[in-house]
Amino acid sequence: MTNKVWLVGAGPGDPELLTLKAVRVLAQADVVLIDDLVHREVLVHCPTARIISVGKRGGCRSTPQDFILRLMLRYARQGFFVVRLKGGDPYIFGRGGEEVAWLAERGIDCQVVGGMTSGLVAAASAGIALTARGSVRGVTLMTAHTADGSQPDWQALVNSRTTLVFYMGVNTLRQTQQNLLAAGMPATMPVAMIEHASYAYQRQTRSSLGSLADDADRFALRSPAILIIGSVAAMCRSMVPTGINSAAQDHDGARVAS
Amino acid sequence: MTNKVWLVGAGPGDPELLTLKAVRVLAQADVVLIDDLVHREVLVHCPTARIISVGKRGGCRSTPQDFILRLMLRYARQGFFVVRLKGGDPYIFGRGGEEVAWLAERGIDCQVVGGMTSGLVAAASAGIALTARGSVRGVTLMTAHTADGSQPDWQALVNSRTTLVFYMGVNTLRQTQQNLLAAGMPATMPVAMIEHASYAYQRQTRSSLGSLADDADRFALRSPAILIIGSVAAMCRSMVPTGINSAAQDHDGARVAS
Repeated sequence: MTNKVWLVGAGPGDPELLTLKAVRVLAQADVVLIDDLVHREVLVHCPTARIISVGKRGGCRSTPQDFILRLMLRYARQGFFVVRLKGGDPYIFGRGGEEVAWLAERGIDCQVVGGMTSGLVAAASAGIALTARGSVRGVTLMTAHTADGSQPDWQALVNSRTTLVFYMGVNTLRQTQQNLLAAGMPATMPVAMIEHASYAYQRQTRSSLGSLADDADRFALRSPAILIIGSVAAMCRSMVPTGINSAAQDHDGARVAS
Repeated sequence: MTNKVWLVGAGPGDPELLTLKAVRVLAQADVVLIDDLVHREVLVHCPTARIISVGKRGGCRSTPQDFILRLMLRYARQGFFVVRLKGGDPYIFGRGGEEVAWLAERGIDCQVVGGMTSGLVAAASAGIALTARGSVRGVTLMTAHTADGSQPDWQALVNSRTTLVFYMGVNTLRQTQQNLLAAGMPATMPVAMIEHASYAYQRQTRSSLGSLADDADRFALRSPAILIIGSVAAMCRSMVPTGINSAAQDHDGARVAS
């Protein structure tokens, strides 16, 4: 009887980006609620667990967040070892905080095991060091859109002179470009676009702020994608993934659990 | 014969935060150059490798960066499988970019395996979701000091309304506090201070911008520490680490390799 829920980050794609801690926790799981964005190959670490797919996107329609929460609550109250396996890091744009708070209100404790977040993995995979001593002293991880449609302070983002890493911004690419230009960021600012970071079929291309949206169209950039904007983005390597990703496999080819 | 160097992130402390990929790469290593900040227990994954400690801090004096670079170059040219094992993520304040560039100039390719970065691990360990839908749309990872003593644009950092995560800022805590107050951040802004993130002896405390430096003194905050500033820092949990860190062990008690 644990009466708690483990919220575990699985990283952005490559199943080898799981931490040893995530593997250990998965091995103890009775029930695993797995997001659509998580590579099914990670389920090799919990062969006896009951697997429940609770993705937000997917085949016909998404699983409502409310339903996911109530499912976790029910299994936890029944004394099962419950793991909620999320893509990336549960505490970076993962709504992990909401889930922990909701469960806490109902007397269920959460243990969070962080995961590799896609923005940083995308940078490493593309050969981009996000900070540089002396010139770039920080990095800002952002979402390009929000539920309420509000805008970030673009001027502040530009003035911060940090490397900007945008998550999930394909639909709002042109708008992001215009906002940054309007806030005074030079059109020559290097940009890297990384699609399906850490997967064997990761693609990436280099651009600049002035031609960002057009280049994305030409490249047929698709979600999930990471946008890296800043001088360090000039380091972006050619688009073919290297041996580092050799263990990553196609999502569709992996074991499908029910 | 590989004639390349693997730059591998080991995460901030807990040896269980290594990724499966890092473990696989370590298992192939002939030579491992390991930073002082990396937990020695991770060396269990490379039992036959030659281990060279190349920390920047440590006993008597630090290993000069130049010496480390030449060591990697020599071993790589001799055809050894060389792993440079760094704390956290090599591309976040890790000078990984400099090392990759230096080796590339000399014909040695680098493969980078990202690691969990301490700022995000510290947040997860303290129970802090760094982003919150609707209110906090981003997070900025910063260093409080630089080699040349230059300052970040404090006004921009405050205006960005992202959660601010400062790495290695214990000595400049009071200055950081004053700069943020001067830039208009309210004295009531929640702050969390996390020392030795992910170690079994992790300590953490909650404060607010107005009393941050005094509270750090009272708490006797020591490096390595992470400072989280923003509304989400109010989520910071009590200071005793939970079972999540149970596998982490004292740095000094681990196997010492030569």
